[in-house]
Amino acid sequence: MERREFVAAVLAAPFARASTDRSKIYAHIDANLPRHIERIQEYIRQPSVSAENRGIKECAELTRRYLAEAGCTETALIPTPGHPAVWGWLDAGSRKTLAVYWMYDVQPVNESEWTTPPFEARLVPANGWGPDAKMIRGRGAANQKGPERAFLNALESIRAVNGKLPVNLMFVCEGEEELGSPNLPLVVSRYRQRLARADGVLFPFLNLGRDGRASFSLGNKGIVYMELEARGGPQGGPKNAEIHSSQKAQVDSPVWRLVQALASMTDPSGNVIRIEQFRSAIRKPTAREIELFERYLPGYDADAVMRAAGIDRFADSADKREALRRLWFEPSLNIDGVWAGYTGPGTKTILPHKAAAKIDFRLVPDQSAAEIAKLVRKHLDGHGFTDVRVNWWNGYDPSQSDPDSPPVRAALDVCRARGVPVQVALRLAGSAPHYLFTRDLKLPLLSFGLGSGGGAHSRDEFLVVEASEPARDLAFCEKSFVDLLYRFAEI
Amino acid sequence: MERREFVAAVLAAPFARASTDRSKIYAHIDANLPRHIERIQEYIRQPSVSAENRGIKECAELTRRYLAEAGCTETALIPTPGHPAVWGWLDAGSRKTLAVYWMYDVQPVNESEWTTPPFEARLVPANGWGPDAKMIRGRGAANQKGPERAFLNALESIRAVNGKLPVNLMFVCEGEEELGSPNLPLVVSRYRQRLARADGVLFPFLNLGRDGRASFSLGNKGIVYMELEARGGPQGGPKNAEIHSSQKAQVDSPVWRLVQALASMTDPSGNVIRIEQFRSAIRKPTAREIELFERYLPGYDADAVMRAAGIDRFADSADKREALRRLWFEPSLNIDGVWAGYTGPGTKTILPHKAAAKIDFRLVPDQSAAEIAKLVRKHLDGHGFTDVRVNWWNGYDPSQSDPDSPPVRAALDVCRARGVPVQVALRLAGSAPHYLFTRDLKLPLLSFGLGSGGGAHSRDEFLVVEASEPARDLAFCEKSFVDLLYRFAEI
Repeated sequence: MERREFVAAVLAAPFARASTDRSKIYAHIDANLPRHIERIQEYIRQPSVSAENRGIKECAELTRRYLAEAGCTETALIPTPGHPAVWGWLDAGSRKTLAVYWMYDVQPVNESEWTTPPFEARLVPANGWGPDAKMIRGRGAANQKGPERAFLNALESIRAVNGKLPVNLMFVCEGEEELGSPNLPLVVSRYRQRLARADGVLFPFLNLGRDGRASFSLGNKGIVYMELEARGGPQGGPKNAEIHSSQKAQVDSPVWRLVQALASMTDPSGNVIRIEQFRSAIRKPTAREIELFERYLPGYDADAVMRAAGIDRFADSADKREALRRLWFEPSLNIDGVWAGYTGPGTKTILPHKAAAKIDFRLVPDQSAAEIAKLVRKHLDGHGFTDVRVNWWNGYDPSQSDPDSPPVRAALDVCRARGVPVQVALRLAGSAPHYLFTRDLKLPLLSFGLGSGGGAHSRDEFLVVEASEPARDLAFCEKSFVDLLYRFAEI
Repeated sequence: MERREFVAAVLAAPFARASTDRSKIYAHIDANLPRHIERIQEYIRQPSVSAENRGIKECAELTRRYLAEAGCTETALIPTPGHPAVWGWLDAGSRKTLAVYWMYDVQPVNESEWTTPPFEARLVPANGWGPDAKMIRGRGAANQKGPERAFLNALESIRAVNGKLPVNLMFVCEGEEELGSPNLPLVVSRYRQRLARADGVLFPFLNLGRDGRASFSLGNKGIVYMELEARGGPQGGPKNAEIHSSQKAQVDSPVWRLVQALASMTDPSGNVIRIEQFRSAIRKPTAREIELFERYLPGYDADAVMRAAGIDRFADSADKREALRRLWFEPSLNIDGVWAGYTGPGTKTILPHKAAAKIDFRLVPDQSAAEIAKLVRKHLDGHGFTDVRVNWWNGYDPSQSDPDSPPVRAALDVCRARGVPVQVALRLAGSAPHYLFTRDLKLPLLSFGLGSGGGAHSRDEFLVVEASEPARDLAFCEKSFVDLLYRFAEI
């Protein structure tokens, strides 16, 4: 309760009693819950693994059909150089319009690791979520088909009871989120003028933790993900194949070049980035952001973070405040992988002809991915590492939504009305393509949905759908979407 | 011929006509060649893959039996913590004693890559070695069972004709050369007092190149091979598993630590070693060594070296002289392999909990492997990399034999008598356990045998045994051993 009060004090607008009597809608949801669960199962059962182009076409079409069934008067499959996107427009005759960002693709699965087959979407006991709790276990249950289909279920109940929705909706659905959204800029750009008329963006989500609290974040760090490679070539080093390591005395080593190039980008601790002008675009945190930080800090469970990460201490032995400050306000540079030469047991004496690494930068406002990628190339060249190639890179800019924007205010009001304590993070350290809305279209974006799930990108992904505690079941989540739409319409 | 003359000028002692008439021995070799070839095949057919403990016990016993059959009055299997060694003593009543260093183990094979099964030791056409040339193809044919068994064949012919050998022989045979000779120091130490009475050491070898020239080298660089590893631990970083890379902002990265630790050991080019005191034990080349270098340099085919290595230029664009100087007189530090995290296609955003690298130093006199290993640890600690572990290391000291020592003089005399041009390298950049003889026992060691073969450590290893050109067949090789023993006895 303490947290809820602080959130109310900091963020919430005065809560007005919703003008529409929603009890009939709630009753419709309760009465149709088995059917709603089935529809989520149905969506999951259509595989849509973007990395393997598995079921993508079918799932794009299914998504388009769902939007049409939900009341969109206009739907379209949008071809891209990759997987198709889906567009939907639902005109409710409202003065308020909510855009919905949507992904219909899912992560690959390693089926042998799953307790039940990932595309069976089986209804199974939800251990740890209370007596008689049940979950749907399947790929996409949490990330993101579960909450997305739950959102459509909510729409259908509103329309079944009221005939029409309180807000207009624009759906932007991509099938390449798990690939880094390479074509989302194209799609957003195509609908740019129409999207610009929206008042905010919703990403259907699962905000409820096992402790019954809701966590929101108002933005994401940006990311630049790169593959660097050094190979023998005109500048030296073996061009065709590894050679005997005794030749190192007279032959350049591409592995050394890569290692030295990497090392030139940080200090010896690996925690301070030493790329020229790297920090020049970083803006200072605003007073409002600092306020949010100070409010968030006391509830930040550093011990739990450390336990989950399996660390004995934060980088540079930072305390809790400094650790959170870095997570929110500092960029980072990570080596995701590096490889060269012989990596088996024992000894093999070779001078490899190539070496590569994958690295990722996390960016804070107002750094941009394209600019950072340029600075990396400039840094490499400036330090004489012209032989180190950037094989490819992709990235997102940072995204940030105003804590006082309509969708955020609406969501907080819903939580308050439903008695759900809320924790609001300025931003996640993770990355998302949300900047296409928040930065390019100046639209606030909120990931919202008072449901529970987990296992995204992992085995046994799940969505809790039945629970003895009412606030834990799918109906509660769907009702939160109903509330959000009505509240958003009022603000 | 030019080369032969230069060698004669630089190295050869006045050549005395051998005091013993060896024509009967030569004839015995010629008459028994088919049987001699069979014996080599027999030795190869007994697998002895030390890395897989395949046939080791049987091959040790076979080797012991061979030594007994060759006339050793004393033979013994010597247990070690690893594979057994074999000792043999042949008392010829001579005032001269030659020790023979021997390896009975072979490299592992990837059978599917071989044209004929590696342990069948099949007699097949030797393409490229002249019309009607034949070779034995099999694992160990060149490295080292072929020349070793050829040496025993020579001994048996001498004894069959003359009854006794011109020199006493001490055999030190190990079954772990391909594992880095971990227990050879133990074995040499056990026979230290007896070995100290020898006048030199022979390693049966194949010195003849396809061009008909013989190449000798009088030493080897030393080596320190190490595996370095950084892991999350009390000092920071994830201890148990990889975590999401977005946490880099607040979590130390073991990969960065390893990369920075490696980078601290060289300059940015990767060609200059920056470990404190690393060069302090290096002695200056002697006048004799510089003389050898100057004589060798004109015949050093830098273009061929570059072609074979697939390089467009030597390190730091060194010219031929500097490249050879580095190969002979400069130590080196190589990264044989490095690995961490995700190395597959595309992106995966993880902060790995461990990273490792395999590195090797090549050492020149009077650096010692143990001392360099200590300096590496000291360097890491001194630069704050106490978290970077040396998982294990092993190594050899450099070895060096005097160009004017009896076995070298004898070998050069044999070549001169047989009209074989010779190229003498001060040392190979590769490494071998020969320092146990040259450094610890002060015995000159020569790798010798006027035979041809190739494919060591690779597929389709071979020994040329029949050729229309007499200097290319097994008989020529065996006769060169006969000559060597008689010449060695005289010097």
